[in-house]
Amino acid sequence: LPGQIQTNLHNKNSADLLIFIMLLTLTILTIWLFKHRRFRFLHETGLAMIYGVLVGVVLLYGVHVPRDISNATLSCHVNASPPTLLINVSGRFYEYTLKGEISASAISDVQDNEMLRKVTFDPEVFFNILLPPIIFHAGYSLKRRHFFRNMGSILAYAFLGTVISCFIIGLLMYGCVKLMKQVGQLDGDFFFTDCLLFGAIVSATDPVTVLAIFNELQVDVDLYALLFGESVLNDAVAVVLSSSIVSYQPEGDNHHTFEVMAVLKSFGVFLGVFSGSFALGVATGVMTFLLYCGSHVTKFTKLRDFQLLETALFFLMSWSTFLLAEACGFTGVVAVLFCGITQAHYTFNNLSPESQDRTKQLFELLNFLAENFIFSYMGLALFTFQNHVFNPMFIVGAFLAVFLGRAANIYPLSFLLNLGRRNKISSNFQHMMMFAGLRGAMTFALSIRDTATYARQMMFTTTLLIVFFTVWVCGGGTTQMLSCQNIRAVVLTGSLNPFPVFWSPQMIVSEGSERRSTKQESAWLFRIWYNFDHNYLKPILTHSGPPLTVTMPTCCGPLARCLTSPQAYECQLKDDDSDLILAEGDISLSYGDITVSTDASGVHTSSGPAGTTTAAISADDLDRELSCGDHELVMRGTRLVLPMDDSEPPLVDPRHRMRM
Amino acid sequence: LPGQIQTNLHNKNSADLLIFIMLLTLTILTIWLFKHRRFRFLHETGLAMIYGVLVGVVLLYGVHVPRDISNATLSCHVNASPPTLLINVSGRFYEYTLKGEISASAISDVQDNEMLRKVTFDPEVFFNILLPPIIFHAGYSLKRRHFFRNMGSILAYAFLGTVISCFIIGLLMYGCVKLMKQVGQLDGDFFFTDCLLFGAIVSATDPVTVLAIFNELQVDVDLYALLFGESVLNDAVAVVLSSSIVSYQPEGDNHHTFEVMAVLKSFGVFLGVFSGSFALGVATGVMTFLLYCGSHVTKFTKLRDFQLLETALFFLMSWSTFLLAEACGFTGVVAVLFCGITQAHYTFNNLSPESQDRTKQLFELLNFLAENFIFSYMGLALFTFQNHVFNPMFIVGAFLAVFLGRAANIYPLSFLLNLGRRNKISSNFQHMMMFAGLRGAMTFALSIRDTATYARQMMFTTTLLIVFFTVWVCGGGTTQMLSCQNIRAVVLTGSLNPFPVFWSPQMIVSEGSERRSTKQESAWLFRIWYNFDHNYLKPILTHSGPPLTVTMPTCCGPLARCLTSPQAYECQLKDDDSDLILAEGDISLSYGDITVSTDASGVHTSSGPAGTTTAAISADDLDRELSCGDHELVMRGTRLVLPMDDSEPPLVDPRHRMRM
Repeated sequence: LPGQIQTNLHNKNSADLLIFIMLLTLTILTIWLFKHRRFRFLHETGLAMIYGVLVGVVLLYGVHVPRDISNATLSCHVNASPPTLLINVSGRFYEYTLKGEISASAISDVQDNEMLRKVTFDPEVFFNILLPPIIFHAGYSLKRRHFFRNMGSILAYAFLGTVISCFIIGLLMYGCVKLMKQVGQLDGDFFFTDCLLFGAIVSATDPVTVLAIFNELQVDVDLYALLFGESVLNDAVAVVLSSSIVSYQPEGDNHHTFEVMAVLKSFGVFLGVFSGSFALGVATGVMTFLLYCGSHVTKFTKLRDFQLLETALFFLMSWSTFLLAEACGFTGVVAVLFCGITQAHYTFNNLSPESQDRTKQLFELLNFLAENFIFSYMGLALFTFQNHVFNPMFIVGAFLAVFLGRAANIYPLSFLLNLGRRNKISSNFQHMMMFAGLRGAMTFALSIRDTATYARQMMFTTTLLIVFFTVWVCGGGTTQMLSCQNIRAVVLTGSLNPFPVFWSPQMIVSEGSERRSTKQESAWLFRIWYNFDHNYLKPILTHSGPPLTVTMPTCCGPLARCLTSPQAYECQLKDDDSDLILAEGDISLSYGDITVSTDASGVHTSSGPAGTTTAAISADDLDRELSCGDHELVMRGTRLVLPMDDSEPPLVDPRHRMRM
Repeated sequence: LPGQIQTNLHNKNSADLLIFIMLLTLTILTIWLFKHRRFRFLHETGLAMIYGVLVGVVLLYGVHVPRDISNATLSCHVNASPPTLLINVSGRFYEYTLKGEISASAISDVQDNEMLRKVTFDPEVFFNILLPPIIFHAGYSLKRRHFFRNMGSILAYAFLGTVISCFIIGLLMYGCVKLMKQVGQLDGDFFFTDCLLFGAIVSATDPVTVLAIFNELQVDVDLYALLFGESVLNDAVAVVLSSSIVSYQPEGDNHHTFEVMAVLKSFGVFLGVFSGSFALGVATGVMTFLLYCGSHVTKFTKLRDFQLLETALFFLMSWSTFLLAEACGFTGVVAVLFCGITQAHYTFNNLSPESQDRTKQLFELLNFLAENFIFSYMGLALFTFQNHVFNPMFIVGAFLAVFLGRAANIYPLSFLLNLGRRNKISSNFQHMMMFAGLRGAMTFALSIRDTATYARQMMFTTTLLIVFFTVWVCGGGTTQMLSCQNIRAVVLTGSLNPFPVFWSPQMIVSEGSERRSTKQESAWLFRIWYNFDHNYLKPILTHSGPPLTVTMPTCCGPLARCLTSPQAYECQLKDDDSDLILAEGDISLSYGDITVSTDASGVHTSSGPAGTTTAAISADDLDRELSCGDHELVMRGTRLVLPMDDSEPPLVDPRHRMRM
């Protein structure tokens, strides 16, 4: 009999999962149609949500599942809720595992809506299964050149901005909640910590829709880097911030009073968890091969002959970073993010070309599936989630607060950053960043994580509506907003045309000269790190970079010779080669971002003679170095969003570019 | 508090999963070392088991986890075991889900060994998550030419052989159990149905170790096809057989008496489930695109521009086959197997070359990870499984029964088949097949599925030992057995050498002429199907094959023109081309299996003039057709096991061969 119960359960579970698979399939087919017809107003994530909503409506109103009789509440007097429960039914023992607490009001629902409950996943699934590949992929495909060039600004937006946004939204919502209490619109408790948590949750931006369109339209690379970098990092900040707000527990009886020690403790938690996760991610990233087989195994021997093993190892290492962080009590997604960034920087260069393709394709696929799954689940949750609390006043307040919070993040910070930046963030860029403050997968995962109390349920419902609104309205209006803000976009036409459409250089000219001026200054922060990385870390860890024999002091000669890969010398020659090519007009250099920058004046900036001394680092070197890694990521990472990317002008053989 | 419990639980789960990830990582690193050093006596699966055993010992004896106090048995009077339980703990409601029944004897263990229980997975995980990719990959990478050529024999071994083996083992074990009862060695019930179930479970062979070595050593392709085809199909037979034995329930009070009606019903279940799963798998395989977007979407339009979408869709369709079968009450793994075979035959040709690579690499990776995970879990389970019942007499009896069951499968069937085959299965091949009756993932998954009763626990323990013995001893002794049986093997040396080592044609000569004679006869079974497939199905569903305008009656002209892909005409020309090439010495034809067959006599079998009429199907056509699809799969599917495969002689451009 228990076997039969399990079989029935299993069949039902299969049917439920089948719903999601069908949803994803439908989404993919429709996206394909949209791409084919060149519709840009609706991104696949928005579409996944729409289908989710439709299926949710059908499940809620169309499907009648007979009440599950055996699911009765047993009158049982116990005084604990252990994670495992043994039930003695007439001599046979059955084992039960704790699923979670249920609010008293929801108990009738538990018995009623078996079908709806079935399509409801354990919230931890999002955090532990679906988010990691998304976050890893984001880190792995970070456009490193423009990311590092705008590092200062990105860090400011991500850290300061998220904290500002969190507190502004928290304060505004607290005011809103006070008002609601006076008007009599609030049925339960809603504390200041709840407001702050809400602020942290909705501060995680996810402009995946906007970035897809940016990519397709070839919008300014710095704007892209700012938005993407900010969104990637502020996910990490928001998740740690929310966990440190949850950890705020004053000593006294009232758990919602202000207490300095508790605040400091929360702040300590934030710093500890963030830096711990960061360190762990970077450590496993850098140490992937050092830890398990020594970097020299990959570098000198033949692991690269076995691409499957290489890919499998890479996948397992990334996953173990996540698990290790969770097991240590850090935040897995943050560790995975920095692991991804580090893997892209170091490990990637040690992989065979085929494994590079394989790993990118694998994570691209995982990212795609996970993202669309989350968004279609969001659509479904709008109707199938059992404990929605729609409170119009709270919702209006939240929309306002989110808007103001984003504004208080972008505009003041941009003003301050512009004081220090030579390449100012123009006001239309600021408006665009303001507009692109979409909320997505991370916000949803954070808000569904705990929906036990009235306050959390209201927050979840409101968050869902915010995500829907921003993805559909802001995401759908991106092209309009771009043209409205006069942000240059190169529209690529004719995906059916096998030959590329060359865009006219004039269109990007001003941008090109603008970028040239940035190059000299904004990277200063990382010059020291870069120096060390370029001269010592990279040559030791990867095949690229100058041989250690050049960069190390002469006294370390034998050690340097022993540590240097034979291919580094080769690489060195290639570096010189590419120097020559690059000096010839900078075309192949910046082609990775598909902004063919020929100087407006027509003057070629020939940046030094061919016989460069590799140890001396110029700004150009840094730039080129960063751009080298980019080529690959840009060319392949955007395969989905850019129907044109196979049709690149055959100026330079890609194989050659890749190895520059 | 429940939140904290969940967090703690979650951290523990991460740590447990981390153990497995570390195990897999260790396995990969060691395999790499083995491949590098050319050790053949231990396959990665055997290695994974060894590491699993080591970690199991450490967990059992080395790790002391404090007794979980909250995990006490609650005295609670209930009279049912519903799948969901609500517990009222002083006003707060907690939800519990049924995990399964626990035998009364194991209850003390439940409280003791929390750590060991943590590393124990829900048995359904194997069936629903780990087996499907393994089985799909097997179907997707079936060597179709030799598979279809030996179809009759393979079906005989798989169906008749598995049933024979199941009943022989069942009867022998029943005798053994009777004896044990008399001697007083049996502590619990053990019925005839249990014996039969044991027979079905251990009849699923999985010679993954042997096949890897065959691949590496380039052993005879027909032997490979027989073994691989048998093992793939008998997994399907065994899983359906075991479920129909479980479904045997006589009407009377005694559930273990013989009753004709119940036997017939079980037989009906077998036929129904098998044919249902088969039909579903083939249907979703063929209809993948027909069902969801119409085959013409892929064929005529531009889905192939979006490889990511294509790959994602392919993955989702394969998964949904599994879920659909499970939801309908069929067997998911069987459906997935036939889906894989069909996908390789039809859908594969409609994918863009890049997606072909991607899908193969994806399933290769999934297969690799799942397989090694299962084998390391097996190693772990030897020490961490809580309810082992080691019964020496039963174990000795089982080993004997398994040996005799395999013998009763191979030798009589081979004798009967040799009556009909012109290309006899020689006695050394028969010995090799006997020897290669390894048990693996499927046997384990079947036996761990239900370990509730004493009989099942004894079966599980014995099965585990059988798997260990066969993988280590038979797997490790494959090379010795091959040389002992004088089965020709071409040893490829020098994986560090980037150039291929050409093996001398004399070595394979007799085999080549042998094969030529088979060609004419053993495919007759499928001539009719092939005719239809080649002339109508393939042209409609894929880009390959002759244009419908040629094969269809003239009256259907307009319809045929409308259904024919423009590329089919192109293809047609290539077919003619390749005819010419093939007639020139048969080299490029059989190169897919890396047996360069030049006739011993030096006489080239020029099979007909160049200007062939495509509608008339000769045996050569069939052969060529089947071999075309092979090339790809052979070349890429064996990447793991064949360190040489990148270094193939550049006789024919692979791109050209692929499109033939």
